[in-house]
Parts: sequence; C-alpha cells; structure tokens
Amino acid sequence: MVDLRSDTVTRPTPGMREAMAAAVVGDDVFGDDPTVNALEQHVAQLFGHEAALFCPSGTMANQIALQLVVPPGGELLAGADAHVVTYELGAAALLGGISTRTWPATGAALNVDRIAAMIRPAGFPSVPTAAIAVEQTHNLGGGGAIPLATLRDLRAVADAHRVALHCDGARIWHAHVADGVPLASYGALFDTLSVCLSKGLGAPVGSLVVGSRERIARARVIRKRMGGGMRQVGILAAAGRYALDHHVERLAEDHARARRLAEGLAPLGVVDPDRVRTNLVPLDLTKAPLDAPELATEAARRGVLIAAMLPKLARLVVHLDVDDAGIDEAVSVLSVLLA
Amino acid sequence: MVDLRSDTVTRPTPGMREAMAAAVVGDDVFGDDPTVNALEQHVAQLFGHEAALFCPSGTMANQIALQLVVPPGGELLAGADAHVVTYELGAAALLGGISTRTWPATGAALNVDRIAAMIRPAGFPSVPTAAIAVEQTHNLGGGGAIPLATLRDLRAVADAHRVALHCDGARIWHAHVADGVPLASYGALFDTLSVCLSKGLGAPVGSLVVGSRERIARARVIRKRMGGGMRQVGILAAAGRYALDHHVERLAEDHARARRLAEGLAPLGVVDPDRVRTNLVPLDLTKAPLDAPELATEAARRGVLIAAMLPKLARLVVHLDVDDAGIDEAVSVLSVLLA
Amino acid sequence: MVDLRSDTVTRPTPGMREAMAAAVVGDDVFGDDPTVNALEQHVAQLFGHEAALFCPSGTMANQIALQLVVPPGGELLAGADAHVVTYELGAAALLGGISTRTWPATGAALNVDRIAAMIRPAGFPSVPTAAIAVEQTHNLGGGGAIPLATLRDLRAVADAHRVALHCDGARIWHAHVADGVPLASYGALFDTLSVCLSKGLGAPVGSLVVGSRERIARARVIRKRMGGGMRQVGILAAAGRYALDHHVERLAEDHARARRLAEGLAPLGVVDPDRVRTNLVPLDLTKAPLDAPELATEAARRGVLIAAMLPKLARLVVHLDVDDAGIDEAVSVLSVLLA
Amino acid sequence: MVDLRSDTVTRPTPGMREAMAAAVVGDDVFGDDPTVNALEQHVAQLFGHEAALFCPSGTMANQIALQLVVPPGGELLAGADAHVVTYELGAAALLGGISTRTWPATGAALNVDRIAAMIRPAGFPSVPTAAIAVEQTHNLGGGGAIPLATLRDLRAVADAHRVALHCDGARIWHAHVADGVPLASYGALFDTLSVCLSKGLGAPVGSLVVGSRERIARARVIRKRMGGGMRQVGILAAAGRYALDHHVERLAEDHARARRLAEGLAPLGVVDPDRVRTNLVPLDLTKAPLDAPELATEAARRGVLIAAMLPKLARLVVHLDVDDAGIDEAVSVLSVLLA
Repeated sequence: MVDLRSDTVTRPTPGMREAMAAAVVGDDVFGDDPTVNALEQHVAQLFGHEAALFCPSGTMANQIALQLVVPPGGELLAGADAHVVTYELGAAALLGGISTRTWPATGAALNVDRIAAMIRPAGFPSVPTAAIAVEQTHNLGGGGAIPLATLRDLRAVADAHRVALHCDGARIWHAHVADGVPLASYGALFDTLSVCLSKGLGAPVGSLVVGSRERIARARVIRKRMGGGMRQVGILAAAGRYALDHHVERLAEDHARARRLAEGLAPLGVVDPDRVRTNLVPLDLTKAPLDAPELATEAARRGVLIAAMLPKLARLVVHLDVDDAGIDEAVSVLSVLLA
Repeated sequence: MVDLRSDTVTRPTPGMREAMAAAVVGDDVFGDDPTVNALEQHVAQLFGHEAALFCPSGTMANQIALQLVVPPGGELLAGADAHVVTYELGAAALLGGISTRTWPATGAALNVDRIAAMIRPAGFPSVPTAAIAVEQTHNLGGGGAIPLATLRDLRAVADAHRVALHCDGARIWHAHVADGVPLASYGALFDTLSVCLSKGLGAPVGSLVVGSRERIARARVIRKRMGGGMRQVGILAAAGRYALDHHVERLAEDHARARRLAEGLAPLGVVDPDRVRTNLVPLDLTKAPLDAPELATEAARRGVLIAAMLPKLARLVVHLDVDDAGIDEAVSVLSVLLA
Repeated sequence: MVDLRSDTVTRPTPGMREAMAAAVVGDDVFGDDPTVNALEQHVAQLFGHEAALFCPSGTMANQIALQLVVPPGGELLAGADAHVVTYELGAAALLGGISTRTWPATGAALNVDRIAAMIRPAGFPSVPTAAIAVEQTHNLGGGGAIPLATLRDLRAVADAHRVALHCDGARIWHAHVADGVPLASYGALFDTLSVCLSKGLGAPVGSLVVGSRERIARARVIRKRMGGGMRQVGILAAAGRYALDHHVERLAEDHARARRLAEGLAPLGVVDPDRVRTNLVPLDLTKAPLDAPELATEAARRGVLIAAMLPKLARLVVHLDVDDAGIDEAVSVLSVLLA
Repeated sequence: MVDLRSDTVTRPTPGMREAMAAAVVGDDVFGDDPTVNALEQHVAQLFGHEAALFCPSGTMANQIALQLVVPPGGELLAGADAHVVTYELGAAALLGGISTRTWPATGAALNVDRIAAMIRPAGFPSVPTAAIAVEQTHNLGGGGAIPLATLRDLRAVADAHRVALHCDGARIWHAHVADGVPLASYGALFDTLSVCLSKGLGAPVGSLVVGSRERIARARVIRKRMGGGMRQVGILAAAGRYALDHHVERLAEDHARARRLAEGLAPLGVVDPDRVRTNLVPLDLTKAPLDAPELATEAARRGVLIAAMLPKLARLVVHLDVDDAGIDEAVSVLSVLLA
C-alpha cells in the first residue's frame, strides 16, 4: 500500500520509539511532566514566544487559540477554505460561540487589502472583528506557503485595527523549509500559533498552542474543559521532541517527491506542478472522469490510498513513509484511472 | 428633526392606534390571542406557507429560523454583509451553534454559481452546509432587491444540493412593491422567511417567522427559550395587521422620495441614484471629507438624523414619517456638510 | 370560563387601554422612547437601583440577568424548583453556558446554611460559584414569600463569599403586599432583579431587569442578541406604568380570594390553606383520583381552566379577572372532580 | 516524595513501557490503528456493550457521553458532588448546552426514590429530564461504591421514565474489585459508561466511552469536534491494554493500604476507616487546625503530596506507586500536622 491520504499516517521510526521508551514522565495535569514541560518551552522558544501548551490534536490547539483571541459573540475573519472553518466540525461556533466571516477561498494567496476592508471596528452596531486566522502552509490551498512579506503586511493591518492574528501552523515547518524563513520570523508576527508534531514531522500524536504566558495560562483551563488534559503525556512529547530534532530539515525530500508526483500527473490535466511547493499535491477533478470519492475508492483497490477532500478535490500527501517507488506506483495507478 | 436613521423610527398613525385600542386579546403563550392567531394565519397565507409565528424583533425571527434549518454544528452560507452575519451580535454562533461561511459582500447582486460552488455536501470530513440565507431587500446592499429569476435559480441550487433556503425578508414588502412580484411568489421559494412589521410598514413592534406547520411548532419552543413568549400581544398584532392592510402599497411613495433624495445628493459623489430602487439611500463616504460617525453627528446638530452603519458607510432611510419637505431639508443639510 | 391557569391571562382594563392609546413613543433600540425610559427609571427607583431595562418576557429578563452575573463556564446555585431551572427551557445552559447546581425543592423556605455550604470558591479545581438565584414569590413553591430576614442572611453569605445574588421577582409585588416589605428593601439585597408587569399586575406584556448602570448597559447588548430589542414599545410600557400605579395594592384582594379558594378545596386534602399566602393555590394531587393533566382537562370541560405544572401538581392562580363568583365556581367544579 | 494527590500520577511500569514500545499502530482518525481498535473492542466486551471509543481524558469521555444522551436544551440529573458537575469546568453547559439539576451531595449513597421524584417528564412546560448520571466509585464521596442492587433499582426507575443512565466509571474497576461485581453486570445497567485507564490502572493516558454502535458512531464525530481525534494512539492504547491485563485485580492491595492509611489517621478525627472501602481516603478538615490548601502545602514541605479538593476537604489516593513505607510516612507526617 502507498498511503498518500495524509502525512498524519506516518508510523514512529525506531529512533522515535526509543525516545518514547526512555521518556521521563509525570502527571502533566499537575504540571509535573518534565518531558512535556521541556517540549513546551522548546517550541515556545523556536517561535520566540513565552509559552506553549501540548494538545491531543491540531483541532484542539486551533480551537483553544481561537477562544483565546475571540470572546464569545465576537468575530473571526478567515478564508472560506481554512481548516478552522472547514474541517473542525463547527467547533468555533458551537464550542466557542465565535462567528466567522470568510474571504473567498484562495488558499495561501492572501489579498491583504481585501482582508483589511473586511475588518469591522468596535463602536458600531455590527459584530466587532476580534481576530484574523491564516493557515501556513494552506491545506485546501494545495500546500502553498504565504510569503513572509504578505504576513508582515497582514500584521501591520492587524496592528492598525487592533485585532489579533492567529496562525494555524499545522504545517508551518514545510513553509519554513520551502521558503527558508526562520520559525521565529513567523512567530514574531502572530499572537497565537498552533503547530503540529504528527503531520509532516511524523510524531504519533500532538499539537501545541503557542503564545504569551497569560494566554497559555488561560489555555490550560480551556484545554481541561475541552477534555485535553492528559497525564503521563511525556511519552508522546518525547516523540514530538525527537521529530523536531530529526524530521524538520528532511521535509525538503518530501517536497521534492511531491513535485515529482505532480510532474508525473501533470499530463492528466489535474494538477499544475509549478504550484506544488511543499508536500501536498491537490488534484482538481472538475474535468476528470471520476469524482474524488470514486477515484479514492478505485485507487485504493489498486493499492494507492488518497483522500477525497471535497467532491471534486482529491489530495495526495507525501511524507516520511513514502519513498520514490511509492511515488512511481501512485503515478502509474492514477494515470490509468484518470486517463 | 428629519429622522432618516431607520424606518423603524415611525410612530403609529391614528388609525393604527385605534386598531390597537380595539384589539381583542388573550394569552398568546397559551395560544389564546385571537388577534395574534389571525395575524399569523394571514401572514402565512400571504406567503403561501402553512404557519407563522409572531416575534418581538427581526433578530429573533431570523435567529429562530436559522435554528430551524441549521442544526448545532452545521453550516450556514450567507453574504458577508448580511444582517444575520453583521447586525445580530453573533447570535447564530453563540446562541445557535451555527457556523457561517460567507460570500463576498455584494448586497442584492447574488452570484448563484459562486454560492452553488460553496456548498459542502454531507459525507465528507468538512462541515456540511445545511442552509443558505439571503436578504430581501438588502440592507447593507442599499435596499437592492434580488430579482425573482435569481431567486429561482438559487432555489434550484438548493434543491439540487438538499440544503434549506431562508429569506431575511425584513423589507420584502419593498421588493414586492418595487418589482411587482407577488409575496406568494417569493414565499414559494423559501423554506423559512422572516418578515418585519415595524420597519417600512410602520407598526410599533413585531416580526414573524414563516414556514411549515412542523417548523413553526418547533419555533414556538425556541421562541420561549429565547425569551420571546409574550402575553396579550394582540395589541401589537393589531397594529401589524393594520400596517399590512394600509401601508404596503404606499411604500411606492417612499421609494420615489428615496430616489429624489439620492438625486439631490448625487452631485456630491456619494451615491448613484440609479442604484436606489427602494427606500434606502446608502452614502459611500470613502472619498468624503467626513466619515460616517462624524457626518451623523454634524447632521444631527442641524436637525437631520442619519445612521453610521460602518466607518465609511452612512444610511438614509425614507419612511412613513418623512415627507417632501424632509427630503429637501436633508439634501440641503448634507450638501453643505459633504461639499 | 373561569381562567385560573395563570395571572398572565388578564386582559388590559379600560384605563390601561387608554394609557396605551395615549402613549408617546419613539424607537427604543435607539433609546428614544420616552415612555419606556420613564418606566425604566421609575422601576429602578422603586427598587433603589440605578437602572432597569424593559424586556418582552420574564424569561428574557431572568436570562439576561443570569448572563450578567455568571460568566460562560461559571456556576449558578438555585433551587431545583426554581423557574430559571424548570420553566425556561434550558436557556441558562444552552444560551448562556451557565452550569446550575441546585438545592432541593423547598420553594420559598430557604435553608441559608445549606446554600452557604454549597458555594464553591475560586482557586480550586472545581467550577467556581458565581451567583445564587432565588424566586420571590416562589411559583412552584405555591406562592410563598421568602422572609426579609432570610434574604438578609443570604445577602451576608453572598457578601462573605463574593458571589452575586439574583432575584427572580416575577411576583415580588405579591411578597411586598403580603409581607408589607418595601420594594426598596428587597432591592437593596440583590445585585440584579427581574420583575414582571404582566403577571399579577395585569399589563399585557413586559418584564424588567434591574441593576447597576454598568450591568444594564451590558444587558442592552445581550437583549439585542437575544432578539429582545423592540421599537415603539412605549405602547406596552404605558400599560406597565398604569399597572404599577393602579394594580399593586389591589393584590391583597387576590390574596384574600386565593385563601378563600384554598379553604374551599381544603376538605379534598389537596391543599393546606394556611400555606396559601399570596395568589397561587397549588394542588398536590399525589393522593387524588386524577393526575394534573387529567384534572385540567376535566375542569376545562366544566368551564374552569387550571394549569398542570407537573404530573401530580396543578396550580390555580387568582388575578384581576377573577371575582368571587369565579372562586365559588372553581371550588364547586373541582370538588366534584376530586371527590 | 510520597505522592497521594491522585492515582493519575502513576508512572508506566517496565512491562507497560515494553508494550508501548512494541505497539503496532496506525492513524486512528482513519480507524486504522489496530491496537486502538482491539482495545476498544475489548473494553466494549468487558462491559457487554457493542462499541467503545478511546479518548484523551475522562472529562472528554464523560462529556461525549453526556452529549450522546442529552440533547442541547435537555436536562441531566446528577449529584451535586458529581465529577461531571464539579470538576469538568462547566463543560456540560458550555459545550453541550446541557442543564443540570442536582440532588444533594451524598456520594455513593444514592436515594433512588428521591432521584425518581426529580425526573421531569416530557409534555409539560418544564425542561424534560433526558438522563441521570452516577459515579462509580464516587470521587468526592470518598471512593464509595454504589451497591449493584441500588443501581438495579435506578435502572428500573430510568426504564419506567424512559430516561438514559450514564455511569462515570473512572474508578469502576475499584468497585468491581471491592464488591466482587462483574464488569458486565455494571455494564448491563447503563446506556453509556466512561472508564479510565490512567487512574487506578496506571496507564499514562486514556479513557473510553462505552455504548451502542449507533451512539459510538456519533461519539466519533463529537470527539473530533472537541479535539480528541488522535493519530498513532495505539502507543497509548497498548499501555491501556497492559493495564487492563495486569493491574485490575491488584487494586485490592491499594484498597488494603488505603484502609491502613485511614486507620492510621483515625485518631485525628478526620476520617472514619469503616467508610474507606477502595483507594480514596477523604479527610474532613471541618474541625482540623489547618484547612485543605494549608495542609497540602505543609505536607508537601515534608515530602507528602495530597490534594485539596475543597476548602475543608483533602483527599489521599493510594495507587500502584505507593508502598507500605509510603503509607507509614504519610500517617506520620499528617499526624504531626493535624495534631
């Protein structure tokens, strides 16, 4: 099986398993797990922030961050194709009481002026905008990375209007590697970030919310209420630390393989290789003979697993557990199905 | 004072006061108010629906309707400038657990294909779209009316994707008069509508949710929970019925005066008279010497009340209590301030 | 028909209708209705508070007050038989995110020590108690009035633990008349009160939240979000003011009739007349031949309307529209049915 | 350090670490983790149910279960000292829109008749009761176990009134061992259960919701929304399975040590050893020279960690990592402080 459904499917490497086996642990709900504490401090430092909090999933990390920057009844601006809008099952509204107003789906291609024009100030009868969320790299946007200059413009807009800026950085590592931007340069531009250890980095479980000491103290309460308070979670944190130490720079290999995969599929007219810059390969099936669920089903029968994200959008994700042979196999199977 | 802030400011006419004074009433929470019951039945019939429910405000009527067509955790599509998104203080998310994904603010100019493309079906990991809401006429859209043909296209899209369609019809009477479309023709296209008696029609208080018998039965429970269960509310319903019987067709006068107002202000470059088709006159102050709150403050000092809707958007509303002299006065005062 | 279901069923008197017909009104969402403003000020003064806010129902007034004194995620202590717990359709939890911990149902007979022992301070891993709510008079408690001395003890407990105190004063007028306690003496003991104009006082619609200026400013926002912002509501406020001026002291007549009703029914073993001190007559049907819904149905067939509150609890309410003959008729009909 | 704060503080044993190191894993969000799947099936079978779902915490498992059995706006009956009421930070109300009506805090000593009398049926204007939750063993109730006969009576009540029954079974293993009741006998009495692997059983992380196939399918969606969807979580599931296979019967040792601890402290008048039947030793500090936070602070300085649960209630918990010497040390330190 070549599993290209997501980079979340990676299995821990022997080195990572050793790190888990040797982890010194404690009860993290009491703040007593040294491995978690060290990981949280390490990640906070990577992004130049004061504090961080380990969470069981990216969804929880994002939702906690949104609750930190938007009060119940307040408004979040985000892209109509953002993960927080699309793939978190309505949690922002249902659990956080947060309204979303969205800009059109353009993935990582942000139009900062348009976003600025959407901000609603306090003092009017309209719902005031409390925060803006962006996604780095952008999942439904095919893994595109928002340029640092764009993010700086957006920060200036946020400052001018006194709204907070959140980064769903589940795959921020890929942007860092693809664009050569230091993590701290990203970190400096956001009030809160969520980052994921289990997607490209290959750890089994875990995301972190990153922010100020005050915000992370509040995050701890929200996490407990949402059911994310875990105990000897240093086992998982050890894997996350191993991933940070060993699996960040190697993402360049995934990016190269994704590019090769896109080039292999380009003749089918479903993907433009020049737009594949990280580890995600989106297939636009608008004109294809199969829609996304059909393609996924047929490919799976032939040993290639892919994800149907939307009716006409499939996604292939390159990761730690995919080698060159897997890429070749995927190109071969999909070429037959989409011919 | 010439009060152009909103058509909600109208005071009941002598005839309307007589109707209130003579109203036969009962306890509506027990379903015992004959005047309310008759009004609900009358409004349901106007729109060709089975049932209707009297509510203390348009916000409550809209929010009840949204809760009827979108389950907690589900998604509503609406314009980024919709009243339900902008002016109801985040109620959909906070009170109903409803996520909103929005199309760009284009007022009454709907792009049905774009809306269709935004719908997310069930069966994918994304939040499924449960309903679409439109606004007739469109408040932030300057009182524009969505053409019946466009609404029919939208209904076809909704049917094809099995999502519900809600109409925020606070000023649907104006569309009916401006475009000569029967109310029942609008009604036939929507699963739920909210309509308002206290805006253009001049009743003191009241909106109704319109829909199927089953939905309105559920609406009654939601209304009670939201605190909208009132008692001898036939007093208000009598005014509403009077307004329906006497103040609908006369809206044409308001439309003509609004047009005249817009023509008077056109030389200032803040409004295009050709786009003023009902009773709302939006002033785009992007290039004006005063922003909306400043303009409102200065005009008020000179006896003309207008509304600051957004920093650069003011709104003038023509209604029952504004005559030709008021229009002239407003043109005169605003022309000085915006020169 | 003798309608004893609730004191909400009263119809406006001729004098009250005149007051409504003559009311000077404005748009209350803009704060422009002089009759509403005067009523709000008058009610605030009656209770010795800074401000008050007119609401369409007692449920909304209570729920707004609870949201003022308990943050989302915080805890309210109340009786298990409180109106806010029992008859507001779960609004506190669903709309306000408020947890309730309840003391056993004992109506107006408060055990202050037990309540004090239930308070959970901040600084522990438990949900901190933010407020306590009591009900004056107590609906499910058969109209009993909490003695002023008990309320003072409770206030001392609230102060000692820094929790807020809310009074659901829908029928606080009845306690005032029955116990001869000035309204301001009650008002001094609570952070927020809700009071109702449409129950014993006989106005068609309306309740008010009473509190500090800061709290009522926030209440205005919450009311708008919940859909309680109404327009020329001075029509209703005029009736409310008339009721306050003319219908408070006369409640003594209702109390006397309720006592007579209870004495008439006492031989049936369903009510203890000595416990009927205001206008509510609860019937305990535990040992009766009919349960509450059956009794209500059979009595209605014979021209007497009563309320089935719970399976074995019926309630008779004496009010403005019930005279001595009505009392006799009710005794006669119910005596046959319960024999 | 002797750590008696909670049985959550246990560190994984060598055998458990080996199980984790060897675990075969997959992406559990896709349902692909064989170790999780096997654990879920195993736990379901232990309780005689169809399905189970692994969650990151007991709070999440409880809250998911409550959302399964109580609709938004519905009512849950529980003890005023229940974990779901006290220690889950208001999640039921804030995240689930669930109202709680509580019976007085009596721990594991349930008064089934009183609970039955609290149930409110549908068809009345009151909030209908949807479910009842009990806790086995009872945390704030000092680890008491509800007798099987009592639970059977409660089940009969639930059936008669058609309400669901949830068991917060975080420490149900202790009841099983203390009372010799098969887990399936408990399981047969509940619609949903939550059980915990990380408290007495000593696994690092994890609880499960147990129920019908239909309910657990819905639970999967709720878990995702709450942020509890984890990836290669078989690492943790392997530890949980090891704990189930090796650490259940040994709880008898903890019970014996807890009894010995209580006997050692009995002379201080803070605990009745006869009421200590499982692994929890509650200290009632009402008459003690120190309150709970002070005692916890002072004991910690002397090497004994205990939990301040409420101002006058401390809790000592015996577990896998506490031996006889630890018990002696705790008795010695606390005896000095409480003398």
